[in-house]
Amino acid sequence: MLDDLTLPVPLSARAGSFTLRSAVPDDLDALMALLSDDPISAARGDVAAAGDREAYAAALLAIVEDPANALLVVVDVTGSVVGTMQLTRIPGMARRGSTRLLVEAVRVSSALRSSGIGSAMMRWVTDVAAPALGVTLVQLTSDGARTDAHRFYERLGFVGSHKGFKYRLG
Amino acid sequence: MLDDLTLPVPLSARAGSFTLRSAVPDDLDALMALLSDDPISAARGDVAAAGDREAYAAALLAIVEDPANALLVVVDVTGSVVGTMQLTRIPGMARRGSTRLLVEAVRVSSALRSSGIGSAMMRWVTDVAAPALGVTLVQLTSDGARTDAHRFYERLGFVGSHKGFKYRLG
Repeated sequence: MLDDLTLPVPLSARAGSFTLRSAVPDDLDALMALLSDDPISAARGDVAAAGDREAYAAALLAIVEDPANALLVVVDVTGSVVGTMQLTRIPGMARRGSTRLLVEAVRVSSALRSSGIGSAMMRWVTDVAAPALGVTLVQLTSDGARTDAHRFYERLGFVGSHKGFKYRLG
Repeated sequence: MLDDLTLPVPLSARAGSFTLRSAVPDDLDALMALLSDDPISAARGDVAAAGDREAYAAALLAIVEDPANALLVVVDVTGSVVGTMQLTRIPGMARRGSTRLLVEAVRVSSALRSSGIGSAMMRWVTDVAAPALGVTLVQLTSDGARTDAHRFYERLGFVGSHKGFKYRLG
């Protein structure tokens, strides 16, 4: 957990009132369901398979215990998980020694897409979390096929200046 | 420092024999020079200005002391720094709980570009460092203007599947 974040916080969206909080081990099944509720993630193997539960549980614990990482969830008024994202604070030499905040695995439940939850999450990242963490650059990559997401990030002031490369082992 | 890396290691390139080792505080001036020896970095403010030395020194110390990060340098037989890169190990939920290795700030001295040093660095990342660190995915972003670098990463087996977005604060 990134200790400098003040959580939980309320998030307002067109779809209603939500709460952003740190993920806990009990969120495991909801997080697996959220990852599989996305065709691109599902195509990469995130299908919420029972056989993968142990690997996801280990990953969840590793993120929660890591002082440079935060796994966050958005819950609705009933406590159901409807969104998630991961933040990683990374010290760096480039850009005059800038500390960066990497945002990964941003997901909103397909039933609530285009409801303003994603915008509220990212606004909190740029306007609240980033200053609290002392970072001057927020960065993320988005699959080339997610053209709606690209427009979404550009509307929020992100600049799509880079190409993202991945190398898969094994 | 990422404890699971075995360093220093020899690196062979067409330009000769080099050594890859962890950066130390005494590498500060060489690293600042290397960052400024690149037009895109220089345009972002990395011009090795004396007034920025304290910020770079603090960043160098932060990376060296961070258990999830490694700042590496390539030195020639005389001990001169001719290359650098930063590695960050990031636990994650996506892709069935995959741990990723983020590569940032890859730089090779302009006098030694296209000499095989960059290839040797990246081959070590994918073939030695990634397995040692237990990661299954290596990722990086490259400025859209660096078309030569894009071809370089593609030749090494990286897939440019993503778009990289940045949001600069303040």
